[in-house]
Amino acid sequence: MEVTKTLAKFLVTHRYADVPEKVRHEAARSLLNWVGCAVGACRHETVDRMLAALAEFSGPAQATVLGRGERLDAMLAALVNGTSSHVFDFDDTHLKTVIHPSGPVASAILALAEKSPVKGEDFLHAFILGVEAECRIGNAVYPAHYNVGWHITGTAGVFGAAAAAGRLLGLTEQQMTWALGIAATQSSGLREMFGTMVKPMHPGNAARNGMLAALLAAKDYTSSNQGIEAARGFAHVLSTEFRPGEITDRLGETWEVALNTYKPYACGIVEHPAIDGCIQLRSEHNLKAEDIESVSLRVHPLVLELTGKKAPQTGLEGKFSVYHSTAVAIVHGAGGEAQYSDAVVRDPRVVALRDKVSATVEQGIHEDQVRIAIRLRNGKTLEKFVEHAVGSLGKPMSDDDLETKFRGQIDGILSKAEADRLLGLCWEIGRLNDAGHVARASVPAAAAGKRAKA
Amino acid sequence: MEVTKTLAKFLVTHRYADVPEKVRHEAARSLLNWVGCAVGACRHETVDRMLAALAEFSGPAQATVLGRGERLDAMLAALVNGTSSHVFDFDDTHLKTVIHPSGPVASAILALAEKSPVKGEDFLHAFILGVEAECRIGNAVYPAHYNVGWHITGTAGVFGAAAAAGRLLGLTEQQMTWALGIAATQSSGLREMFGTMVKPMHPGNAARNGMLAALLAAKDYTSSNQGIEAARGFAHVLSTEFRPGEITDRLGETWEVALNTYKPYACGIVEHPAIDGCIQLRSEHNLKAEDIESVSLRVHPLVLELTGKKAPQTGLEGKFSVYHSTAVAIVHGAGGEAQYSDAVVRDPRVVALRDKVSATVEQGIHEDQVRIAIRLRNGKTLEKFVEHAVGSLGKPMSDDDLETKFRGQIDGILSKAEADRLLGLCWEIGRLNDAGHVARASVPAAAAGKRAKA
Repeated sequence: MEVTKTLAKFLVTHRYADVPEKVRHEAARSLLNWVGCAVGACRHETVDRMLAALAEFSGPAQATVLGRGERLDAMLAALVNGTSSHVFDFDDTHLKTVIHPSGPVASAILALAEKSPVKGEDFLHAFILGVEAECRIGNAVYPAHYNVGWHITGTAGVFGAAAAAGRLLGLTEQQMTWALGIAATQSSGLREMFGTMVKPMHPGNAARNGMLAALLAAKDYTSSNQGIEAARGFAHVLSTEFRPGEITDRLGETWEVALNTYKPYACGIVEHPAIDGCIQLRSEHNLKAEDIESVSLRVHPLVLELTGKKAPQTGLEGKFSVYHSTAVAIVHGAGGEAQYSDAVVRDPRVVALRDKVSATVEQGIHEDQVRIAIRLRNGKTLEKFVEHAVGSLGKPMSDDDLETKFRGQIDGILSKAEADRLLGLCWEIGRLNDAGHVARASVPAAAAGKRAKA
Repeated sequence: MEVTKTLAKFLVTHRYADVPEKVRHEAARSLLNWVGCAVGACRHETVDRMLAALAEFSGPAQATVLGRGERLDAMLAALVNGTSSHVFDFDDTHLKTVIHPSGPVASAILALAEKSPVKGEDFLHAFILGVEAECRIGNAVYPAHYNVGWHITGTAGVFGAAAAAGRLLGLTEQQMTWALGIAATQSSGLREMFGTMVKPMHPGNAARNGMLAALLAAKDYTSSNQGIEAARGFAHVLSTEFRPGEITDRLGETWEVALNTYKPYACGIVEHPAIDGCIQLRSEHNLKAEDIESVSLRVHPLVLELTGKKAPQTGLEGKFSVYHSTAVAIVHGAGGEAQYSDAVVRDPRVVALRDKVSATVEQGIHEDQVRIAIRLRNGKTLEKFVEHAVGSLGKPMSDDDLETKFRGQIDGILSKAEADRLLGLCWEIGRLNDAGHVARASVPAAAAGKRAKA
């Protein structure tokens, strides 16, 4: 079975007309969520330090650093935007593989689309195909590959970026086969880096290196024709299990991007049911922290294992505290990045409520479920069972939810009018004449003016 | 045991004064051999295609493409030069690990040294330390890591490039630790790519990505402090065996660059004894192809397994034919890249002699040995037993041999005077005021003039 060639042939011959409308819409949702993440983190010190290190090596001003306005060559822009979009760990998740699919793919092709204008439908199609490639390759090796210690968003992502960039560049079947091989030999990213600035660099690097693979293949730079499946190729060297059928079966009939999910809250996914339920109780009962005597959570075991921090001291620690997350859900009615600042984690009102939260394991409860009981000072008890947390496949975020998340992320970076325009372009991506508008519209007028003068 | 931190501390605190003169000289020999390889292949289509793909993404003209004169940003120049130096598989070999040590390290730091001038002794010191880092990391995982399917020049090379670039950038111990971690998470390169244009890209990519690691760390871009030894770090994820003591024991007391070897002939190392012996017989007896009735070789089994091609049709196939290699050794008295052109492989004189060569396995003969018997038309038989082929650790190439190889490689690219000057700079590298002179002197005046006008 020629896995790499079969995938390459699909990637270069598939027609946009054969992508169902529902799949196109999910791809637009993925793109919108990715733009919000990249813009939302664009002023983080991770991005600052990366730009400080690399700007002087940049080639022509081909592509935009989202939200900021610096313009770099397309490969470096892809690196920086892919990194920015993963800084807060708030990007999309393909739950079958825990791949964050958009970062590698969108970062590569949006930068390319600025360099050489691309129609929106070609852009969206390349995006869908790139996500298909990386997630199918992920499906073929997950979980064994992840258990070895690989950060699958980096290792599989480089294929997605190569596939999508290769499609935009109009590669032939042979060239696409080579591009996947050149991607294979660059596949990298270690889980040891979690908790450091290099973790978000993994999707950025996948974007940069996948683009490099496609650019080289476009000039007939050769590689193996069996980069994925050969005995010394990607799957056998980087995984202990390999199911090639996951890559080659029913190509064009099923769509991995349709399985994409989006985090409503800027913290570990196991805390989401508690936040979801508390926000619901807050709005249903006009709940105030001062009225509460205690909050009791009955949870899946992973919640305490991963997010059992009782007294977090920093914003980052707050993300690993279901107690803090529960408290801010009630005090702020939200669980965005703003709720995980150092200041909010130390806010006396939040701390006071946090200390009233308890959590115990309930056997048989699922990961996206929680049982909440809030006892009030007036003696009443409010209860809520969350069957599927918002953002899970069982209860996807609505388009409105995604817009709300997006606005929360870019608040303070773009004006209301700028946010409206950028949102509109993301929703319309498949119908734009020039997909690169999305990148340019991510830059606030103030920053754009400053760059022009500099 | 803190492997990464221990190595980082050594890399930032070691003093050049403590490098023995013999080690410095071996490093200069390595550099000279690397420059010859990179210049010698600079017009190969592998380099042409890479430049065609990437030149439009290049940043400022910071560094030279060796032998050609295009100037690219330092990261891309490192990629191209590292690739060029491995195109003919004629570069150096650390026999303990089969790492080609110079490509990743020299490509990274020569490009950096052009961007910001560096004294020759600092350059040579950084080179020695980079080779030390990559080869020690290689020693710690070889052969298990190689057997998994990794091209160790790529996977270990990225550490060498990061270490050497980091030393030139003056990283602190913490920053060097991060640089090694950022290198670890980029470690890649599959053996499946052997025989394609991506194989030589591995040292180039190692140079580019190692430099990136050092540049990021210099701006306090964080990574793990245990990138090499952690459970999900480099050694455990990319190898089934790990001997950390190979990295940390006797640092500064032994030198891996002192174990470096250089190929006298542009083909697989198992053919070298036969070529060596035939060239000796040719000059000892003024041997001519017309006088020969038959050539019989008694060889190690690997010779027939790897290079048993009886009737090669192309230059590349000629490299895998001990019969062709023996014939050109007698007809041309050489085994350089010129002896592996398509034309020479099809030359009737060479073909006629090749058909008279036979090879049989002799039990107990070593890989660097051969027993040759040449029967002449006049009834005489000439015999030669090669105990250690030239270029092996048992019989290293002399400085003169290296110069002859160098001149053979750059013949037709540099004039005699240009070659003399470049050779002189390589030998003098440790005493130059500006190491970047080596890069600029690799460009023939004709090409430099053309570039300046363009």
